[in-house]
Amino acid sequence: MSAAVPRLDLHADPADLTRTLVDIPSVSGDEQLLADAVEQAVRGLGRYEVLRSGNAVLVRSDLGRPTRVLLAGHLDTVPIAGNVPSRTEGDVLHGCGTTDMKSGDAMLLHLLATLENPSRDLTVVFYDCEEIEHERNGLTRIEREHRDWLAADLAILGEPTDGKVEAGCQGTLAAWATVRGHRAHSARSWMGVNAIHGAADVLQRLASFPAREVDIDGCVYREGMNAVGITGGVAGNVIPDECRVRINFRFAPDRSAEQAVAVVRELLDGYEVEVVDVAAGALPGLSAPAAAEFVAAAGGTPSAKYGWTDVARFAALGIPAVNYGPGNPSLAHTREEHVSLTQIREMTETLRSFLA
Amino acid sequence: MSAAVPRLDLHADPADLTRTLVDIPSVSGDEQLLADAVEQAVRGLGRYEVLRSGNAVLVRSDLGRPTRVLLAGHLDTVPIAGNVPSRTEGDVLHGCGTTDMKSGDAMLLHLLATLENPSRDLTVVFYDCEEIEHERNGLTRIEREHRDWLAADLAILGEPTDGKVEAGCQGTLAAWATVRGHRAHSARSWMGVNAIHGAADVLQRLASFPAREVDIDGCVYREGMNAVGITGGVAGNVIPDECRVRINFRFAPDRSAEQAVAVVRELLDGYEVEVVDVAAGALPGLSAPAAAEFVAAAGGTPSAKYGWTDVARFAALGIPAVNYGPGNPSLAHTREEHVSLTQIREMTETLRSFLA
Repeated sequence: MSAAVPRLDLHADPADLTRTLVDIPSVSGDEQLLADAVEQAVRGLGRYEVLRSGNAVLVRSDLGRPTRVLLAGHLDTVPIAGNVPSRTEGDVLHGCGTTDMKSGDAMLLHLLATLENPSRDLTVVFYDCEEIEHERNGLTRIEREHRDWLAADLAILGEPTDGKVEAGCQGTLAAWATVRGHRAHSARSWMGVNAIHGAADVLQRLASFPAREVDIDGCVYREGMNAVGITGGVAGNVIPDECRVRINFRFAPDRSAEQAVAVVRELLDGYEVEVVDVAAGALPGLSAPAAAEFVAAAGGTPSAKYGWTDVARFAALGIPAVNYGPGNPSLAHTREEHVSLTQIREMTETLRSFLA
Repeated sequence: MSAAVPRLDLHADPADLTRTLVDIPSVSGDEQLLADAVEQAVRGLGRYEVLRSGNAVLVRSDLGRPTRVLLAGHLDTVPIAGNVPSRTEGDVLHGCGTTDMKSGDAMLLHLLATLENPSRDLTVVFYDCEEIEHERNGLTRIEREHRDWLAADLAILGEPTDGKVEAGCQGTLAAWATVRGHRAHSARSWMGVNAIHGAADVLQRLASFPAREVDIDGCVYREGMNAVGITGGVAGNVIPDECRVRINFRFAPDRSAEQAVAVVRELLDGYEVEVVDVAAGALPGLSAPAAAEFVAAAGGTPSAKYGWTDVARFAALGIPAVNYGPGNPSLAHTREEHVSLTQIREMTETLRSFLA
């Protein structure tokens, strides 16, 4: 570790700590400096086992408590959009990563430093490359190489939930449907078969898909089947022989990945369908004791997480998993990303009350 | 004119002359060398008035005949696709421009040289930039600057018709229809309005357009309304807020350009429609005496020209106009472009019989 590693004051106000983290750029693949700073700070606490894995930092206690809570936050951000360094206006901190999810990281780092005698054992994972492809995601590597570090009774992921508990997550599927035709000069269009005209049927099937609303543990998951892209055409005077429709299916976590694939294939029966990516959702698992206790501590009614998050990984490992972090999730990945400093402090204290 | 100008032997076999013309590259905008060669050759005949206009060469007789026939051929080609110089296989000449339309040019040049005592006065226009935008087309310039050269009782355009007379031409209209929606994260798709789904209605209206078949002077014009391109989509996780459909309408020449625009606007009523180009068709005009005599000389039954050609300009000037030239029009603009040497010779003789 070089002398240039920024020093993090974990005992400081978690809102100030968020500002410090945001001002250390860490776009996916370029998290080393921030990971070094986090490693240096948590080792400095002197009371945790610390493991460095690539640009991930894993921290755990061994107090012999009856339950273990796994807390996780990714260190990387999407590409900076002219919004680093951060900017503070009254109670609002603006900048890349303020919501997704350096405020969540600051909450977890601050609790590591200030929880003196927690009632539960803690494992905290700060990881890299969440914003890019699954294979590069730090959790993929940790699951492969350090599977024992992921054992827990409950996982809490610090992804933004704007003060609420968001349980489980929906699954997501990406596919391309291809409609074929036959090319011809447009002056003699009857000699061809227009693939773009043919795509009308695909679009109608997608639009008329009976999207379900599924209630699980009091959380309502609302599905969505959509064309998110379309492309076709050869030239202004040619009947097109191909039209491709890009599809995104967000499905409730009572369907498996395989079932979601089958739904899309059945809906588009008769067309070429290439499924390019599918990630199962996560059941909320709120009936598990540790999860129920957390929901009670956090107060309010938990709701469904619509976007896919890494809670699905924990659910796949049999660990009940929820999202709980500062910031409005709809601001994630936007140039206008910002977070309330008050909310960072309030959510940190709520989480402390559950762990203390 | 420099010494490097190739010499054309207009008295030679028009099939050989075609080969010579193909081997002088003349992609649109780069016709000077070929125009120089044509100008030198027709001036060398010594019995016509010759006018050079840019890279166009205009030639006319003044024999005091009761009728005047205007013959026209463009000197330019689409970009070469590895198919120049030409290649002869038996009766077939392969290469860029063999069909569209240096075989037609060769036919006209050979007749200029070998028609000793024509029964009709002749005006022959070899022009530039037919394959690109209207404003650069040599005929646009000639119509503006040398309008008197375009007076005639019949115009014959040497565009490929594969041995037949193709009368008039269909009109063509290009437009974009835009469907608007509202952007949202695809995990919460019900908060958005999917513009690509909305395009299904546009595509269905296009596909169900009642395309007419219109019989005019025994020529049947069959219309076509088509999507020739479609584009939409923001990202794999975003409900798209815009989808654009590129439209091509080929319409029978009994509709004016204004009427064609109205047809498209009515069909897509309720959507944003931007008409980017419209070119009226040309009525066949076969009831005019000179046209009827030409059809009789050519034999067979004239048919409708489906593609748009410059005959529409002559029709707009009140001159009956037909297409008549060697080569299969469906080979135009293809890498496989080729022409039958026998057909070049036969069509030249048929045209001679009408003009002699």
